[in-house]
Amino acid sequence: MDTRTLAQRYLAVREQTLALAAPLSAEDCCAQSMADASPVKWHLAHTTWFFETFILERWQPDFRPFHPAFRVLFNSYYNAVGDKHPRPQRGLLTRPPLTAVREYRNDVDRRILAVLDAAEGGGKRRDDAALSDLLTLGLHHEQQHQELILTDLKHLFSRNPLAPAYSKPPQISERAPELSWLECPGGVAEIGHRGDDFCFDNETPRHRVFIEPFQLASRLVTNREYLEFVDAGGYADPRFWLSEGWDWRVAENRHHPLYWHPGERWQEITLGGLSPLDLERPVVHVSYYEADAFARWAEARLPSEAEWELAATTQPVEEHFGADGVFHPRAASDSGMRQFFGDAWQWTQSSYAPYPGFRASAGAVGEYNGKFMVNQYVLRGSSCVTPPGHARVTYRNFFPASACWQFSGIRLARD
Amino acid sequence: MDTRTLAQRYLAVREQTLALAAPLSAEDCCAQSMADASPVKWHLAHTTWFFETFILERWQPDFRPFHPAFRVLFNSYYNAVGDKHPRPQRGLLTRPPLTAVREYRNDVDRRILAVLDAAEGGGKRRDDAALSDLLTLGLHHEQQHQELILTDLKHLFSRNPLAPAYSKPPQISERAPELSWLECPGGVAEIGHRGDDFCFDNETPRHRVFIEPFQLASRLVTNREYLEFVDAGGYADPRFWLSEGWDWRVAENRHHPLYWHPGERWQEITLGGLSPLDLERPVVHVSYYEADAFARWAEARLPSEAEWELAATTQPVEEHFGADGVFHPRAASDSGMRQFFGDAWQWTQSSYAPYPGFRASAGAVGEYNGKFMVNQYVLRGSSCVTPPGHARVTYRNFFPASACWQFSGIRLARD
Amino acid sequence: MDTRTLAQRYLAVREQTLALAAPLSAEDCCAQSMADASPVKWHLAHTTWFFETFILERWQPDFRPFHPAFRVLFNSYYNAVGDKHPRPQRGLLTRPPLTAVREYRNDVDRRILAVLDAAEGGGKRRDDAALSDLLTLGLHHEQQHQELILTDLKHLFSRNPLAPAYSKPPQISERAPELSWLECPGGVAEIGHRGDDFCFDNETPRHRVFIEPFQLASRLVTNREYLEFVDAGGYADPRFWLSEGWDWRVAENRHHPLYWHPGERWQEITLGGLSPLDLERPVVHVSYYEADAFARWAEARLPSEAEWELAATTQPVEEHFGADGVFHPRAASDSGMRQFFGDAWQWTQSSYAPYPGFRASAGAVGEYNGKFMVNQYVLRGSSCVTPPGHARVTYRNFFPASACWQFSGIRLARD
Amino acid sequence: MDTRTLAQRYLAVREQTLALAAPLSAEDCCAQSMADASPVKWHLAHTTWFFETFILERWQPDFRPFHPAFRVLFNSYYNAVGDKHPRPQRGLLTRPPLTAVREYRNDVDRRILAVLDAAEGGGKRRDDAALSDLLTLGLHHEQQHQELILTDLKHLFSRNPLAPAYSKPPQISERAPELSWLECPGGVAEIGHRGDDFCFDNETPRHRVFIEPFQLASRLVTNREYLEFVDAGGYADPRFWLSEGWDWRVAENRHHPLYWHPGERWQEITLGGLSPLDLERPVVHVSYYEADAFARWAEARLPSEAEWELAATTQPVEEHFGADGVFHPRAASDSGMRQFFGDAWQWTQSSYAPYPGFRASAGAVGEYNGKFMVNQYVLRGSSCVTPPGHARVTYRNFFPASACWQFSGIRLARD
Repeated sequence: MDTRTLAQRYLAVREQTLALAAPLSAEDCCAQSMADASPVKWHLAHTTWFFETFILERWQPDFRPFHPAFRVLFNSYYNAVGDKHPRPQRGLLTRPPLTAVREYRNDVDRRILAVLDAAEGGGKRRDDAALSDLLTLGLHHEQQHQELILTDLKHLFSRNPLAPAYSKPPQISERAPELSWLECPGGVAEIGHRGDDFCFDNETPRHRVFIEPFQLASRLVTNREYLEFVDAGGYADPRFWLSEGWDWRVAENRHHPLYWHPGERWQEITLGGLSPLDLERPVVHVSYYEADAFARWAEARLPSEAEWELAATTQPVEEHFGADGVFHPRAASDSGMRQFFGDAWQWTQSSYAPYPGFRASAGAVGEYNGKFMVNQYVLRGSSCVTPPGHARVTYRNFFPASACWQFSGIRLARD
Repeated sequence: MDTRTLAQRYLAVREQTLALAAPLSAEDCCAQSMADASPVKWHLAHTTWFFETFILERWQPDFRPFHPAFRVLFNSYYNAVGDKHPRPQRGLLTRPPLTAVREYRNDVDRRILAVLDAAEGGGKRRDDAALSDLLTLGLHHEQQHQELILTDLKHLFSRNPLAPAYSKPPQISERAPELSWLECPGGVAEIGHRGDDFCFDNETPRHRVFIEPFQLASRLVTNREYLEFVDAGGYADPRFWLSEGWDWRVAENRHHPLYWHPGERWQEITLGGLSPLDLERPVVHVSYYEADAFARWAEARLPSEAEWELAATTQPVEEHFGADGVFHPRAASDSGMRQFFGDAWQWTQSSYAPYPGFRASAGAVGEYNGKFMVNQYVLRGSSCVTPPGHARVTYRNFFPASACWQFSGIRLARD
Repeated sequence: MDTRTLAQRYLAVREQTLALAAPLSAEDCCAQSMADASPVKWHLAHTTWFFETFILERWQPDFRPFHPAFRVLFNSYYNAVGDKHPRPQRGLLTRPPLTAVREYRNDVDRRILAVLDAAEGGGKRRDDAALSDLLTLGLHHEQQHQELILTDLKHLFSRNPLAPAYSKPPQISERAPELSWLECPGGVAEIGHRGDDFCFDNETPRHRVFIEPFQLASRLVTNREYLEFVDAGGYADPRFWLSEGWDWRVAENRHHPLYWHPGERWQEITLGGLSPLDLERPVVHVSYYEADAFARWAEARLPSEAEWELAATTQPVEEHFGADGVFHPRAASDSGMRQFFGDAWQWTQSSYAPYPGFRASAGAVGEYNGKFMVNQYVLRGSSCVTPPGHARVTYRNFFPASACWQFSGIRLARD
Repeated sequence: MDTRTLAQRYLAVREQTLALAAPLSAEDCCAQSMADASPVKWHLAHTTWFFETFILERWQPDFRPFHPAFRVLFNSYYNAVGDKHPRPQRGLLTRPPLTAVREYRNDVDRRILAVLDAAEGGGKRRDDAALSDLLTLGLHHEQQHQELILTDLKHLFSRNPLAPAYSKPPQISERAPELSWLECPGGVAEIGHRGDDFCFDNETPRHRVFIEPFQLASRLVTNREYLEFVDAGGYADPRFWLSEGWDWRVAENRHHPLYWHPGERWQEITLGGLSPLDLERPVVHVSYYEADAFARWAEARLPSEAEWELAATTQPVEEHFGADGVFHPRAASDSGMRQFFGDAWQWTQSSYAPYPGFRASAGAVGEYNGKFMVNQYVLRGSSCVTPPGHARVTYRNFFPASACWQFSGIRLARD
C-alpha cells in the first residue's frame, strides 16, 4: 500500500475511534466495570501507545515519548515492552484526564503522519514494508478496540440503575424466517488465511483439515427460540450442561442471558437503553456454556471453526454498524443462509489453538495472539459492533467460555 | 438555634463541601479506589440525600424527590429508608454526571432554605426543635464526609503512578521536641457528653468510669520514632504484634506504613503529591495493628479512650485545616502537651462499644452509629482534614483495626 | 503444691483426656472439619508437646525430644518456640498414627513423673516453684483442650450426613422456670483474680471498675424463647442486627442457630446425635451477632463482663460434665439465679482486652493469651463440656464474634 | 465374554484395589488433601457404589441398597442418579469406618457374583449383553480409581512433613539415551477406537483427520533436561509461557515442578518417600502450562493427540506397575522409540473435545465422560501407576491445564 493511502486510512480509523467516544462524558470514559473490561479513555490511549511503541520508537528520528509514564500505564500485556499498570486498576486513572489523552492522540497522529511522509520519499524498502505492515496491524488493532469500546461501555451502563442509553433503541422486528439446515459434504478442505493480504498471525498458515459431512443452521438462534429453552427449565436441569458450565451457572446464579431483565414482560439491556425483548432478533451475550447447553437441548451442537469457515467462505461480509443510530443485531430477513457476519459472533466448539505450522510474529507484537492459546473458545463471523472493513471469513475471535459481554450468539450445527 | 443562624450555618457548610471539590475534575470525582472509600461525587450526593430524606420528606409540603432513583443510589446504609446501591459499585455511576449532582445540591439547598423560612414563622414548636436537631445532625454528617472526601481522594491518588497533587506539599519541619510523659492520677472520672449541645448519640450518656493512674505521652509519635521501629526489624518480628495483626501484615505484605515509599530516601504520599518523608511530623496512616505493635516495641501501650478523654479535657481544640494550602499533620512545636486535636486521629485500645445506658436515636437516623459497635476501635481527637468546628473532646471516631487510609496516628500511654 | 499431689493431679488430667478419646476410632481422631477446629489426635499430641516443650526441655537432664519433627507439627502458635505446621492442614497428618501419639503421651508422662520425682528430693526451690507453676498451667491448658476435643468433634460429626453420636442423647426436659431479673446496684467494684491461686494471666490484675446499676436475667435464654425470635422473623429484619452481624448472616445464609435442623419439627444436632429440639434447654451455638440481635429484639442487651462477674461472684460453680453419659446443657430447674456455670458460655458485650496493668507471662508462654486481645469477645461462666474443676468466676473465655461451634449461649441484661 | 470369565476378571480387579489399600492405615484412607483428590476409603466405596447403582439396582431381584445414605455419600457426579455429598468434604466422613466400607465391598461382590450366576443360566440375551458391558465398564472405572488411589495418596503424603513412604524408593538410573526425532509423514489418517472391543465412549467414533508432516521425540523429557530449563531461568521469563500459565505460576509461586524439593541437592517426593532427583528419569507432575513453556524454550511444541496416536499405534503397550515394589517412571533404556506407555501420561496440545459424531452412552453412565469436554487437555499413553491391562493407544485421559498431581510428563513434537 502506498504511504498516501496508508495515511488516509490511518486518519479515517483514528477519527472513527474519536467519533465513537464523542457522545460520552469524561466520567463515562474513565470508569471500569470489571477487570475484563477497560475504560474508554484507556482504549483511546492504549491504541495510541501501540503506534507510539511499535512505529514511532523505531521509525521516528530522535524519538522521545509523549510522556514516560504512559509507556507503563497504557501497555496492555506486552512483557517484551516492559512493566504494565495492573489491569483491574485501569479505572482508577482519573489522571491523565481525557483531554490529555486526546492531546496524546493528536501528538502521535502528527508524528505518525510525519514518519509516513518521510517514508514516501523512499529509502530502505524492506523497512518500508515493515512500517506498512505494522501500521496496518495497528489499524486493525484499533478497530478491535473500537468494538471493545462499545461492549465495555455496554457493560458499564448495564451496572447503572439509571439504564443510560448510548444510541437509539432498536425497534421490534418482523417475524424471522423459519430455520433451515444447509447440507455440507465433508472431505479434505482448506482453512486459514493465504497471507496475500492483511490478517492476524493466528489465521495462518492456510492448511488442510478433514471434515465429516455436517448440517449448518441457516441463521442464528433467536430470542424466541432461546426463551423456549428458558421456559422449558433449561437453566434448572444439569443434563443439558457441561459440568463446568453448570457450576458456573450456579455460582453466578444465572437464570437467563446476562442482559435480559425479567418482569411482566422480558426486557433487554441494549446500547439504546432498556428495551422490550425482541423475540425475532438473535440471542446475544450468551456464554459458551449457555450456547452449548442450548444446543444440547435443541438436539444439535455448536459447529467447529473449520465447519463454520467452510460454510461461510462463499457468504458476503455484511455490515450494519451503527446504521440508523442503532447498535444491535438485526433479525434475519429471508430464508437463505444469513447472519454469518454483522450481527453476532458465533461460538464454535473449537478451543483456541495454533494452526499446524503456526509461527507467532517476530518481536513484541508476537505476544498479540499466540500466548492466549489455552482455555479459550473461538468465535467466528463478526458482530453489529465490529467496525466496517474489519471482518474476514478466516477471522478467529476468542474468549473464555464464561465471557458474556461481547455480542456472542449461537449458530447450530448437526452431524 | 434560630432558623436564620441555622440557615447561615447550613450555607457555610454546604459551600465548604463544594470548595473542597472545586479543584477536582469530573473524572476525579467519579472514581472509587476501594470498597471502603467512595467517589467524591457520591459524597456530594449522599450528604444532599441526607437532607432530602430526613428533612424535606418530613417538612416540605407536597414533597417530591429530585429524582426517584437517587433515593436508592445515594442511600449509604439506612435499612429503614430502603434499598441501597451496592457499596463497591459506587464508582460505576458515571451517570448522573457531576453537573447533575450539583443541580441536586442546588435544588435541595433551595428547598431546605424554604423549609427554614417557613419554620421561622412559627408553628409546631416541638417539631421545630426536631427540625433544628436533624438539620444540625445533617451538617455534622456533611462535615464527616468533608473529611472522607479528602482521605478517599488521597487513597485514589495514591494508586495513580502519576502521583497527582491535590494541594501544596508540606515543607520539612523543625526538630520536634523530646517526648515527655504526663502523670495522670486515677480514680472515678466522668466521660461522655452532657448533651447540652450538639453531639452524636454515641457520645452519650455522660457516665462514670474508674481509671487507674497512668502516664500519657506529650505528643504524637513522629516519623523519626516510627522509622526506628522499622529499621529495628519491627515488621519482621511477630513478638511485637497481635496474632491477628501479624497475619494481616503477612497477608498485606506490609513493611512500612501505607503511604511510605522506600527508595534511596524515604518518601511519603501526601495530598501535595509524593514528598520526602518529614521525620519530625507525626506518623500517620497506620493501622491499629501497627500502632499496637509500635507501642509494644516502645515498651508502652495505647491509651484507653477514657484515659485519653480525661487528659484531653483541658486541652484546646486546635486546627490548621488547609492552612497555607497544606493538608498534612504538623510537627509538634513545643514541649508541652500537644497535638490532641488537628493533626492525627489517635488510636485507643478501646473497642467501639455503647456507653452504659446508651440509646440510639429514634427513627432511621438511629442507624447512624449504634449498629457499628462491634470489631472496631475508637480513635480520639481530630486530624488535619477534620473541618473547623467539628472536633470535640468527647468525639468518638471508629474504624476497623486494619484501616489505614484515615489520618490515624499514635499517642502512647504507660501504666 | 507438693510434687506428689502434683503428680496425682497430672495423671488424673492426662487420663481424663484419653478417656474422652476412648470411644473414637483412629479415623474420627484424624479429621479436621474446619481451620478453627483441630483433630482429636492433634489435641492429644499438642497437649503433650506443651509439657515436653515447657517442662522437659528445661528440667529433664539430657533432654532429647521424642521426635524432632513433633516440635513443629504440634506447635500451635508459639512463635518464640519456632516454626509451626499450618493450622488448616492439621487434618492431613495421617502420620504419625494415633498409636504413635499414644506412645508419645506415655513417653512424656513417664519423663514428667521422673522430673517430679527428682524435684521432690529438693534442690533449687525457686526453680521448683516455676516447675509447679508451669505444670499446673499445662494441666489447665490440657483441660481447655478437653473441651475443644468435644466441641471440635461435635462440629466434625455435624458435617456427616450419618449424624453419628458420641454419647447418649439428651431427654426432653421439664418446663423451665419463668425468667426473672436480678437487681444489681452499681458503684466501684473489683473484678479479676487476686493471683493467690492458679489463674490465667489474662484474669489479672484484680482491679476496680465503675458499674452503673443494672439488671441481670435469672437464667439463660431457652430454645423456646429463641424460637420465638426465629418465628417472629428475627433473621429477616436487619433492624435487630449489628451491621457486620447482618452481613455475616447473609453471607452464611443463616436462618437459625448452627446446629438446629428445620423440618416438620425442629431438631438439634447434639453429641448424642440428631435429637428433637428441647424447648426448655438453653439455646447454644449462637454467635455474638445472634446473641446481640436476640437481645435487641428482646429489648435487653448482653451484660458486660464486669457486670457478669459482679453478679456471679456469689454463685456456686456447678457442673454436670458427662453426667449420665450426656454432654448437653440442662434446663434451669428452679426460679433462683441459675446457670452461671456448667451449661453454656455466656457472651458478654466486652471486647477481649487487657486489664489495666496487665502483664503477659514471661517467656514463650506469654503468647498464651495476650496476643489474641483484639476483635474477640469475652464469654463468661463455663459449659457442659468444661471439665470438672476448670471453671472460675474470673475466667475469661474469648472467641471471634462469628464463632458458633462452642457451647455459647445468652444471658440477658438490662439497664 | 462369558459370565464365568467375567466373574473371574471382576474378582481380580476388586482384589487388586484392596491390595493397593492394604499397606495403609484407616487414617491414611480417610484423609483428603485437596478438593481434586479423594480419600482412599472414598475410592473403595465409590467403585462399589458404581456396581451397586448401575448393576444391582437393575439386575438384582428384590434389590435393596446396602445402606440408603451411601447412595448420596458415594455418588461422584451423576446428576441423573440424584444428590451427592459435596466433593471437598469427602475427607470429613470418618463414618462409615473403613471396616464398614470393606463390608460394603464384600456385600456387593457377593451380590454381583449372584447376578452373574443367574445370568449364566441364560435368559434375556440382549439384557445379558448390557450386563456384560456395564460390568466391564465398572471394572475399567475401578482401574481408573486404582490409579487415582496412588496419585491422591502421593499428594496426601506430600503434604506431610514426615515424608511417609508407601512403597520402595526408586534407585538412581543409568544414563538415558540421547533424544532423537521420529519423522512422521502427514496425510489423512484414522484415529479413535473401532468399538470392536471395550473402550470408553469418548474414544469413539473412529474417524479421519488430516495431519501435516511432523517429528516426534523418541522418548520423554528427562529431569536433566527439565532442570536445564529451570537453571536457565525458565520460571522467571514470561516469554516462554502462555499468558494464563504465567499468571498461574505467579499465583502458585512455582519455581520448579510440584514434587521437586530444592536444597543442596535436588530431591523429589516419590511414593517411596523423599528421594534424590534422578536426572535420567522422566520429569513428571508438571502442569500443561509447564509442559508448554518447556516445549517453547526447547524450540519444540507439544504433539496433538492425533499425532501422538498416529505415532503410537505401532508401539507395544509396556507396563511395570509396581514392579520390584516401585511406583515411579523409569528412565528410557535404549535409543528407539520409547515410553509411549507405562511411565508418564503425556500432555498433548489438544483440548478435550468430542470426536466428530460422538454420542454419549445412554442413561446415567452417559455422564461419565461427555460433560467434561471443556477447558481440559488430553493426555495420552499411560503411567507407572496405570493398572496392567488398562492402557490403549486410543485412550484419552484429560485434566485441567493446572493439574500436576497425576504422573504427567512431556513428549516433544516439531513441525
